Amino acid sequence: MTHLDLMKTLHIPAQTKIVHLVMDGLGGLPRPEDGKTELEAARTPNLDELAARSQLGLAVPVAPGVTPGSGPAHLALFGYDPLRYDVGRGVLSALGIGFDLQPQDVAARGNFCSVDAQGNITDRRAGRIPTETNEKLVALLRDIQLPGVQVFVETVKEYRFVLVLRPTEGQSLGANIADTDPQRTGVPPLPARALDADSEATAALVNDWIAQARRILQDHHPANALTLRGFAQDPGLPPFAEIFGLRAGAIATYPMYKGVARLVGMEVLPVDGETLEDELETLRRHWADFDYFFFHVKKTDSAGEDGDFVRKMEVIEHVDAVVVPAILELDPDVLIVTGDHSTPALLKSHSWHPVPTLLWSRFNRPDGIAIFNERVCGRGSLGVFPATAELPLALGHARRLTKYGA
Amino acid sequence: MTHLDLMKTLHIPAQTKIVHLVMDGLGGLPRPEDGKTELEAARTPNLDELAARSQLGLAVPVAPGVTPGSGPAHLALFGYDPLRYDVGRGVLSALGIGFDLQPQDVAARGNFCSVDAQGNITDRRAGRIPTETNEKLVALLRDIQLPGVQVFVETVKEYRFVLVLRPTEGQSLGANIADTDPQRTGVPPLPARALDADSEATAALVNDWIAQARRILQDHHPANALTLRGFAQDPGLPPFAEIFGLRAGAIATYPMYKGVARLVGMEVLPVDGETLEDELETLRRHWADFDYFFFHVKKTDSAGEDGDFVRKMEVIEHVDAVVVPAILELDPDVLIVTGDHSTPALLKSHSWHPVPTLLWSRFNRPDGIAIFNERVCGRGSLGVFPATAELPLALGHARRLTKYGA
Repeated sequence: MTHLDLMKTLHIPAQTKIVHLVMDGLGGLPRPEDGKTELEAARTPNLDELAARSQLGLAVPVAPGVTPGSGPAHLALFGYDPLRYDVGRGVLSALGIGFDLQPQDVAARGNFCSVDAQGNITDRRAGRIPTETNEKLVALLRDIQLPGVQVFVETVKEYRFVLVLRPTEGQSLGANIADTDPQRTGVPPLPARALDADSEATAALVNDWIAQARRILQDHHPANALTLRGFAQDPGLPPFAEIFGLRAGAIATYPMYKGVARLVGMEVLPVDGETLEDELETLRRHWADFDYFFFHVKKTDSAGEDGDFVRKMEVIEHVDAVVVPAILELDPDVLIVTGDHSTPALLKSHSWHPVPTLLWSRFNRPDGIAIFNERVCGRGSLGVFPATAELPLALGHARRLTKYGA
Repeated sequence: MTHLDLMKTLHIPAQTKIVHLVMDGLGGLPRPEDGKTELEAARTPNLDELAARSQLGLAVPVAPGVTPGSGPAHLALFGYDPLRYDVGRGVLSALGIGFDLQPQDVAARGNFCSVDAQGNITDRRAGRIPTETNEKLVALLRDIQLPGVQVFVETVKEYRFVLVLRPTEGQSLGANIADTDPQRTGVPPLPARALDADSEATAALVNDWIAQARRILQDHHPANALTLRGFAQDPGLPPFAEIFGLRAGAIATYPMYKGVARLVGMEVLPVDGETLEDELETLRRHWADFDYFFFHVKKTDSAGEDGDFVRKMEVIEHVDAVVVPAILELDPDVLIVTGDHSTPALLKSHSWHPVPTLLWSRFNRPDGIAIFNERVCGRGSLGVFPATAELPLALGHARRLTKYGA
């Protein structure tokens, strides 16, 4: 029996409330001057006080040594093994820009690239054209028509865009199509090749679109061609409500996180603004209506990506000062404070390091350590554990699982 | 290769002795007055002294957040993944009352229930009739005859009973039969429906039995009908001796634990009485004859289930004072002290919390902490580990596994 099947079998109704507070990219690395991580350097009296009454541990998002993208990292927090439930790149890209993806859509990531007179690729990223150029080219590409499907082209950033085909009534598309990006220069882009019979018609449509796009782009060097990869459809994940028996509300301000939450079947709650205070207002307004709240904090990750140690520290302090007390004020039954992955300012990127995690409930055995940081979490009684265990643990502590076996 | 296959491949003969001391429901939760668990509050000088020379950790019986029943929890201690080796409810119920289940028997859990004049269920538990009423009704049901099979009906408690069909020479039964309990009131019990061809004849026999039972019960409101669920046969687990290469003796006083030990192929040793001293006498008497002893202490769990913190504490103190020194006196090579699950007095029930565990052997690396409780086990060098790892660890420490690979 898989762990999701187990949850599906065991969950029972209850009146309890779970809050999953996710500081994106929370984990860090020591800065040279004093050997402290962002979380260690931050002044966090509320988290420290909560830690004294909680269990601590380090969550592994995907697998040891593996740096996760935001999609897989959040799937793991939501209880879905990201190695088993593979959400295609095309879908993640569409969700990342807030595109309203429908279940039958086929999405692919696109790159503008440069080709020479022979049609061989000379630059796979078209000289990293500015986003404004991308937007102008995308506007031109939107004129392309294909028989029987709706076509969407959306700018992502610099040389990257998203292509989405949407079937019309009665038609169905297939996404099992090989990448057209040959992953090297000196050769032409590949044609879209179907990898199963159900995707052949779709591959033909994609090749038709590529041919029209090439004619439009031919005089727009360095972006005079394109490649497509990560063709994918909504993977049809087993719905969160069915698996965990929770009415789940997602509170986030960035498209990617709202997208992944929607993909598992959470209700994405409207946030009036972009601040943590705005998100808290949403939490309070919907407190009575949901059993589980995913509360996402984006700016820890953004600061880490920018290599800005102090700003990341300040975001953590803001969460400590404002978000933690406000959540506790609502009197949840279970509160987990964690991140989806580490984003050390030192690395200016996501990293493979496991994520400091705190679990508080009325029925836990506190580790009795009044500090919340990577170091003490490494000695906590949750151990080093897969992030997919957070939801099952939360359900157990919320008294929402019946006994397994007699 | 599964872990059981690995053990089967690697085990080698040795003269060493392993004792697995299982205090049922050992793990607890802090009591409000002083924040101590049962194990923390208990005075345990012998366990503490042993802990100083041992490794500590927290065992997860089934999966994070999941509260195990006694059957799955013990399977895990015996090295069998309880999610892979599913022992049906009917079998566990029969074992739980000490019924001498045979490999071909089909067992089901029964509930007496109440139905109205239309045959619709009005109370799924027949008003929780007293056990004495159950016994009288079971005596009546024992008159039912079925062609070609032996039928056993046994009282469990209150509204619960067990039904067992035993095939006669040459006949074979199937247990893939859906529950007749519709899990709600206002509808009639369902007929027994075979879920595969091999179970059709058995389902017909069950329906015949149900029809006769309904006629007998019709004037015995509130117990004027019944439902059956968890149809199951002995799952035919891979035998303990083959997997681990151990002659295993089980010392327990309650039917459920003897039953599960027998299910994996251990020899259940007779205990003359019900006290811990009686169990120790059995251990001493059979010391020369076995390589592995499962030594079960029931009363930690019973006290926890009763919500009696102090009594649970006293049972632990009794084990510390009497059982631990007596086992050490026998000079085992490996001693594991653990529980099958947690039963905090605070919750008056089994719980999902991992179980404090101590492993002593001549060849371990002691953590050097002279305390045995949940909190220090949460920092121990065994980490937070699956309970199924205890047998392999014991074998390793007993020098009973050869090298894997060259």
